Amino acid sequence: MTHSSSRYNETRNPFADHVGFSMEPGAPGESTARLPIQPQHLNPNGVLHGAVLYAMADTGMGAAVFPTLAPGELCATIEIKMTYFKALVQGDVVCRTVLVNRGKRVAYLESSAFAGEVLLAKATGTYAIFTPSQAAAARAAGPATASAESRACP
Amino acid sequence: MTHSSSRYNETRNPFADHVGFSMEPGAPGESTARLPIQPQHLNPNGVLHGAVLYAMADTGMGAAVFPTLAPGELCATIEIKMTYFKALVQGDVVCRTVLVNRGKRVAYLESSAFAGEVLLAKATGTYAIFTPSQAAAARAAGPATASAESRACP
Amino acid sequence: MTHSSSRYNETRNPFADHVGFSMEPGAPGESTARLPIQPQHLNPNGVLHGAVLYAMADTGMGAAVFPTLAPGELCATIEIKMTYFKALVQGDVVCRTVLVNRGKRVAYLESSAFAGEVLLAKATGTYAIFTPSQAAAARAAGPATASAESRACP
Amino acid sequence: MTHSSSRYNETRNPFADHVGFSMEPGAPGESTARLPIQPQHLNPNGVLHGAVLYAMADTGMGAAVFPTLAPGELCATIEIKMTYFKALVQGDVVCRTVLVNRGKRVAYLESSAFAGEVLLAKATGTYAIFTPSQAAAARAAGPATASAESRACP
Repeated sequence: MTHSSSRYNETRNPFADHVGFSMEPGAPGESTARLPIQPQHLNPNGVLHGAVLYAMADTGMGAAVFPTLAPGELCATIEIKMTYFKALVQGDVVCRTVLVNRGKRVAYLESSAFAGEVLLAKATGTYAIFTPSQAAAARAAGPATASAESRACP
Repeated sequence: MTHSSSRYNETRNPFADHVGFSMEPGAPGESTARLPIQPQHLNPNGVLHGAVLYAMADTGMGAAVFPTLAPGELCATIEIKMTYFKALVQGDVVCRTVLVNRGKRVAYLESSAFAGEVLLAKATGTYAIFTPSQAAAARAAGPATASAESRACP
Repeated sequence: MTHSSSRYNETRNPFADHVGFSMEPGAPGESTARLPIQPQHLNPNGVLHGAVLYAMADTGMGAAVFPTLAPGELCATIEIKMTYFKALVQGDVVCRTVLVNRGKRVAYLESSAFAGEVLLAKATGTYAIFTPSQAAAARAAGPATASAESRACP
Repeated sequence: MTHSSSRYNETRNPFADHVGFSMEPGAPGESTARLPIQPQHLNPNGVLHGAVLYAMADTGMGAAVFPTLAPGELCATIEIKMTYFKALVQGDVVCRTVLVNRGKRVAYLESSAFAGEVLLAKATGTYAIFTPSQAAAARAAGPATASAESRACP
C-alpha cells in the first residue's frame, strides 16, 4: 500500500492514533491536528512533552504535502526543527500546518501549535518528493531498513 | 516537584512510558533510550514514525543534561532539529545522546538513533538552563500555560 | 562599548559593510536588509552564495531584537536554520525579519529573503538575552575567546 | 559551466575569496576551511560575525559533497542549521566538515568550527543531489531566478 493508492484521510496512522490526536487535512497544502491533553502526554515535570507537539507537526506536514503529490509519488521527511515558546499543563492543542514552498523534489512546510490564541511552538521542515521505483522494489524484498526515500509521508 | 528534588532515573516520564521506550541515563552528559518497535509506532506507510525517534532524542537530551544541573536549576528544550536517513519497519531502536557543549545558560546536545549498526537519524538540540524563581511562582498560581522557561527537562 | 550604550543604527557592522548590504531597523522587532548582487557574492556555479542570505538574516535578527533589550542587556545568536528555495544570479535581494516570540531569556525570529515577489529562502533563529556581568568581566580581561553569552547581537 | 566539468579545487569561489577563507577539499566527503580573522569579519560588538562561520560551513559542505557526485550531477543546499558556543575576537578559525550520510538524492553533513582546540560552533546541513536536465535548460533561457535544484554546490 502506498499513499498514492488511497486518499490520505482514509488511511490509518497508527502512531497518531496511539498519541491521541486527530487530523483534519483541509485544502491541499494545509492541515490541522487536534489533541486534548491527557495524563500520558506529560513529561516528568507535569507539562506537555515537546515530542507530542512534534508528532502533530510531522504528521501534519505529511498530511499537507500528500494531496500535492502526483500519481506514483511519495514523500519522506528530510528534517524538521521545532522551537518551543510556552509550556502547557492542560487543555487542548491545535497544530496548523501550511506548505510554504513546493519544489519538484523538495517541499518546505511550517507548523504552529496553539492553545487557544497562545503560540506554544513552531516547526519548519523539508520533505523529499520522489517516485519510489527502486525503493519499492527494495521494500518488496522485505528488509528491516530501507533508504530514507522510502519512508513516505508520516 | 522539580527535577532537582529527586534523581532523574527515579522520576516517571508518562509520555516515554506511553510511547514505550526505556531510558538509561548513563554518565552525566550521556543517555541511551531503547525501543522495541510495535505496531502502534508505525506511520501510514507501515514504517517507524519519525516522531518516535524524536521522542527518544528529546527525552534523551533532557536525561543527559539533568545530572549537570546545579541545585534549584531546571532545563527546558529551546529547539531540536532532527534529520532522517533510513526507514525502519521492525526491530529495535537505540538512541544515544551526548552533551557536546555546556554553557552556563544554554546546553547543546546531539542524539543518534540506530538499528544495530545502521544510523537511522540524527538530532541536535539546545536547552535553556535557569533557576525558576518567577516561573515557579507562576506555576504555583496554576495557569494552563507557562513561559517556556518553566517547561523543564523532558 | 555595548549595544545598550548607543542606538543600533548608529553602530557600525564591519561584516555587513564588507558583504555589502544595508540595514533598515524599522519598528522594534522588525528589520529589513537590502543587497544589490555583485560578482563577489556568487558561488562557483555563478549563483548567489547561500551564506550571503544567511548574513542578511543573522544581522537582521540582531537588529530586530536589539530595540527590545532592557538597559544593560545583550543578545547573542544561539542558532539559526536557513532553508533555500530558489537560486538568484542577479538583481536585488531584500531580507525581512520579524520577532515572533520574545521570552525573558530567549527570543525567536523569522527572516524571509525575496527577489521582488519571489521567496528565495527562509530562516528561523533563537537568541539568548542576558545581562553580561561575568561575561563583560571576562572580556575586559582580554581573552581571545569568550562564552557564547558574550557574543552579543550580530 | 557546471561542477561536473572541472575539479572543485580548480574552480573559483568568489564569495569565499571575498570573505577571505581558503578551502582544502581533502578526501571525498571531507573538507577544511581556514580563516585568519581580520577587522572586516567582526560584528558591532567587536567579535567574529556568526555568518563568517556559516560561510565556511556552507562552502565546506559543498566541497565535501562535490567529489561524491556522479558525472552530470549537481548538488544544492536544502538547509543548514548552525549553533554557536563561543565568541572569538582574534586569531585563526578552522572549519572541518564531514559527510555523515550519503543517500541517492540527499546528503547530510556536519561542520565544526574551531579556534585551536576550542569548539566555536557546529552546523548540520542537507544537500539535494540531482541531474539538472530541466534546470539547466531553464538556466540557459536566462532567468534571474531558478529553482533551488539549480543552485548547485556552494
